[in-house]
Amino acid sequence: MQELLSRIHGTADLKALYPEQLPTLAKEMRHYLIETLAPIGGHLGAGLGVVELTIALHYLFDSPRDKIVWDVGHQAYPHKILTGRLDRMPSIRQYGGLCGFTKRAESEHDPFGAGHASTSISAAYGIAAGRDLNNEHYNVIAVIGDGALTGGMAFEALNHAGAHNKRLLVILNDNEMSIAPNVGAMSSYLARIITGKPYTQAKDTAKRILEKLPGALDAAKRLEEHVKGMITPGTLFEEMGFRYIGPVDGHDFDHLLPTLANCKYLDGPILLHVVTKKGLGFSPAEEDPETWHGLGPYSVETGIPHKSNGKPPTYTQVFGDTLADMADHDDRIVAITAAMPAGTGVSRFEKRHPERCFDVGIAEQHAVTFAGGLAVAGKRPYVAIYSTFMQRAYDQIIHDICIQNLPVTFCMDRAGIVGADGATHTGMFDIAFMRNLPNMTVMAPKDEAEFKAMLITSATINGPVAIRYPRGNGYGVDISQLPAPLSVGKAEILEAGNDGLVIAVGTRVRDTLAAVERLRQEDGKAVTLLNLRFIKPLDLEAILKHLQQGKLLAIVEEGVAQGGIGQEIAALALKSGWSGPFVHIAMPDIFPAHGTQPEILRDLELDANGILKQLRGC
Amino acid sequence: MQELLSRIHGTADLKALYPEQLPTLAKEMRHYLIETLAPIGGHLGAGLGVVELTIALHYLFDSPRDKIVWDVGHQAYPHKILTGRLDRMPSIRQYGGLCGFTKRAESEHDPFGAGHASTSISAAYGIAAGRDLNNEHYNVIAVIGDGALTGGMAFEALNHAGAHNKRLLVILNDNEMSIAPNVGAMSSYLARIITGKPYTQAKDTAKRILEKLPGALDAAKRLEEHVKGMITPGTLFEEMGFRYIGPVDGHDFDHLLPTLANCKYLDGPILLHVVTKKGLGFSPAEEDPETWHGLGPYSVETGIPHKSNGKPPTYTQVFGDTLADMADHDDRIVAITAAMPAGTGVSRFEKRHPERCFDVGIAEQHAVTFAGGLAVAGKRPYVAIYSTFMQRAYDQIIHDICIQNLPVTFCMDRAGIVGADGATHTGMFDIAFMRNLPNMTVMAPKDEAEFKAMLITSATINGPVAIRYPRGNGYGVDISQLPAPLSVGKAEILEAGNDGLVIAVGTRVRDTLAAVERLRQEDGKAVTLLNLRFIKPLDLEAILKHLQQGKLLAIVEEGVAQGGIGQEIAALALKSGWSGPFVHIAMPDIFPAHGTQPEILRDLELDANGILKQLRGC
Repeated sequence: MQELLSRIHGTADLKALYPEQLPTLAKEMRHYLIETLAPIGGHLGAGLGVVELTIALHYLFDSPRDKIVWDVGHQAYPHKILTGRLDRMPSIRQYGGLCGFTKRAESEHDPFGAGHASTSISAAYGIAAGRDLNNEHYNVIAVIGDGALTGGMAFEALNHAGAHNKRLLVILNDNEMSIAPNVGAMSSYLARIITGKPYTQAKDTAKRILEKLPGALDAAKRLEEHVKGMITPGTLFEEMGFRYIGPVDGHDFDHLLPTLANCKYLDGPILLHVVTKKGLGFSPAEEDPETWHGLGPYSVETGIPHKSNGKPPTYTQVFGDTLADMADHDDRIVAITAAMPAGTGVSRFEKRHPERCFDVGIAEQHAVTFAGGLAVAGKRPYVAIYSTFMQRAYDQIIHDICIQNLPVTFCMDRAGIVGADGATHTGMFDIAFMRNLPNMTVMAPKDEAEFKAMLITSATINGPVAIRYPRGNGYGVDISQLPAPLSVGKAEILEAGNDGLVIAVGTRVRDTLAAVERLRQEDGKAVTLLNLRFIKPLDLEAILKHLQQGKLLAIVEEGVAQGGIGQEIAALALKSGWSGPFVHIAMPDIFPAHGTQPEILRDLELDANGILKQLRGC
Repeated sequence: MQELLSRIHGTADLKALYPEQLPTLAKEMRHYLIETLAPIGGHLGAGLGVVELTIALHYLFDSPRDKIVWDVGHQAYPHKILTGRLDRMPSIRQYGGLCGFTKRAESEHDPFGAGHASTSISAAYGIAAGRDLNNEHYNVIAVIGDGALTGGMAFEALNHAGAHNKRLLVILNDNEMSIAPNVGAMSSYLARIITGKPYTQAKDTAKRILEKLPGALDAAKRLEEHVKGMITPGTLFEEMGFRYIGPVDGHDFDHLLPTLANCKYLDGPILLHVVTKKGLGFSPAEEDPETWHGLGPYSVETGIPHKSNGKPPTYTQVFGDTLADMADHDDRIVAITAAMPAGTGVSRFEKRHPERCFDVGIAEQHAVTFAGGLAVAGKRPYVAIYSTFMQRAYDQIIHDICIQNLPVTFCMDRAGIVGADGATHTGMFDIAFMRNLPNMTVMAPKDEAEFKAMLITSATINGPVAIRYPRGNGYGVDISQLPAPLSVGKAEILEAGNDGLVIAVGTRVRDTLAAVERLRQEDGKAVTLLNLRFIKPLDLEAILKHLQQGKLLAIVEEGVAQGGIGQEIAALALKSGWSGPFVHIAMPDIFPAHGTQPEILRDLELDANGILKQLRGC
């Protein structure tokens, strides 16, 4: 079956093939991807869409000498296969296995790692600028999706690169789909290019019309309209200083190979527009690319994802449903997503309140300031962005929301350990970077019921709010009722005891409770356990009240220790004159690996066993 | 002299004037601005450039019902004058006076505050979206400079707003100058519009040429070229979904008034391109707009800034000169600025190493990832961005630099209290948001000589480095020598004593030293004083060695307390079993006001007196 593919141990093996063999290789690769990912899941759709493009690039260019920078990196599965990582593909995104994205440490063929979108042109242009200063000669290629092109930094990079004459090839992989269907003017623009009549035909038509026109004024007017139609392909990129080539069928080697071969010898900044179909070759993925963007195990035959066996709802689902419920009774509530309506649960809100839902594209910075504008107009915006992507909008959170004390709520899904996506997606900094902001309230729920209560609470707070909650399912606690708002800044006592004080935050409360129970049962030590609930404002009163001189003080949080709330509590304890055994159980000063959430939490000693061990070691 | 101006106590007074009186008012306003700012300094150039535009806007629109969002806000001086703040203008940027930017708390005519660039379209579009949901009817206007348009979030906002049909007026205030002369493709594009032949004339020419052409192929080719030339005005914005109007002379009421009046009645997103001259009416500012962007007191007659009386060099100057010196002997060193070559000192580097200097535009995100690419190509990039603007690139610092452990050095000027620019520009978060990142080294010098040593040190570190240093002049210490690199992670002992340990960071070391000396002299208490030097890695050894059980422990830093290094030291002390009087002297959980640096430091009890008071109170 994989006659050709099994021979490819590196790019040299690919280059040894005849061009006529490439379509067969592409077919084999698609099969291989679909079969290999079925039991383990992964980013299937993006990879299937760029099979031919990847083959053509490695056939014609000379990696690692030539540098190929894949935007986001989840489109790089075929790239990994062709660059000597075929054997390890079944391990992708698994503990100890290949990374789901490009990664410098993994291969010399990955010149720049990426898990977040829109970085490739900046990185590639930096490499090109360095190359020229070094008087070196190689090609630098950025492959960026149309979705990633909506991110502001991609525009910043085009603006910079387009003004100079450095050799740089930007390949726009246009599948009309980032994760969700694309939104925004850029998307419409690209669609106009693709769906329009061929460029040359349009030119002829315009000329014919022009020659027959009557009055000069009319002529000018019609000319204006027609040249607009004619000029569409690439104008925008040409105005930005790039030579535009395309659109090219990204699944046809007869188009791809000669075009790419030409690009190899063109100087200056080039934008090659390649049209692909996300999920090509696997009909379920072609038909529903959003679901198939990144997913768990599925059936190769039917494409049906394996059942999740009646698990409790995810935090994402609870968010979408609760916000929609709240909006039923509160006209002010609006929801904002940055190109991830399904991933954030905003799509559940959108079904019930479509006119109050805004998908702004991969544009976290704009999302936040746009929310600020909505707040000025009297709305209560909920900005749903994963913890790790919220880093993109840090300045906007400070400058546009916190300084002005506007009532915008940041719903930070995927806070803490995220599992298979690994370091680039880990939500490990949000406690540190949110709790230091004046006017900000920061909450973290212990379970999905408390999460619901925190969402309700947020609507009562007249200023910025951030709620952090984890990837994955809740615990199955009852969430049928609309809870009352929480008392702002008040912690919850879960256990009482005279052998010390343990303070746990959000995602780590359950495992801490389990550890504390074992401490009682196995060691005969009874500690007081506080569920902090509010990272900011801090419940000084409860903490000071329950501090026991000379007895254990422990803080458990699923975030980086440096800047974590544990350090503030330490300062508070120190100031109060407390002393005794102290332990701050948090994430160490490293970027965590990928694996399942339990595997990584275990490695970091942040699961119940690890917490217990650290409590005992104190 | 200011016959008309003195009558304007609000926009109603302006509307009572005849259109013919507006040029006189503009003239008076220019005089007033030049005279008023001469003794106090301020952002003169931007305001002078938009005098007519501001008058026209308030003459035709109805603020505060209509919302005018000024990008950055330092172009809003004429807006402040016309909206009832004329009397308070002499207090602008002074302690207790008007803010140098727009500010919601200051006036109902400031619907959205701004001190950072590129936020106005996002904010205005958010207000417009809220307005429509509320079924309200008013105009929302964003006024954005051509420089601010290079910021990615402006593009994100255009992309979002252009795809819908909400009523929104974006005025592009094109003065070919943000702070420094603009760079990038967008700037060239706008220049082509302005310098090109008038639109209609181009159309006629093209038509004439077309009718006379021979072969069809040639015709198509020439047509292509000509329509490109013709179509230039506004195409890019039209492709982004905006109706483009312009270019319009921004100093001619006969153009401005009818055009703006028309815009008032157009639906959907409009981009009005207004051409202005920064500094118009004050020849020194017209001729050297970069110097005149924001400045200190000057002479009204000659335009010469008042002498700084032989002060020591600023940290900015030391940075530029030292980096240039280093680059003389190290080919790898390159410098990157985000549209602030003079403000950051990069222009001093550029003079000696032009080919190794990159100005990327107002594009902090791209700046950082571009630096990452340069590092991949073997370079040693120095990214010079003010502390407060570094917030714009937080995700790129994490995702593109720290995860990949690339040797990029972040030179964060204006760390801590900045003075007249106030809250939006205060560098209060960088210690918290940098020190929590794996692989990052964070330094803060006590004076300009140590700063120089830290720059030298950074080149020896094989990973990301951040150096924070203050606005303003050094202390005049000897910087004639190229110092040896510091020992990474080692603090410096400045004073030794048995009455406790005081740890001071960077900008606060000198004042802490003064306080500690007074403590010795006046109170007879001798404490050990550590100059921390490295915020990360922390000198655990020195701290633990000098901690004195039961005696004072104080940490002094010019950054926010939450997440500050003082909290990490507290955790360390607690863990070590230390107890005693503890004080963390840092910025409180508020955004500071504007005023001089000494005034604000005094208010926050962070000057020598304030530190002494807090040390005594402990």
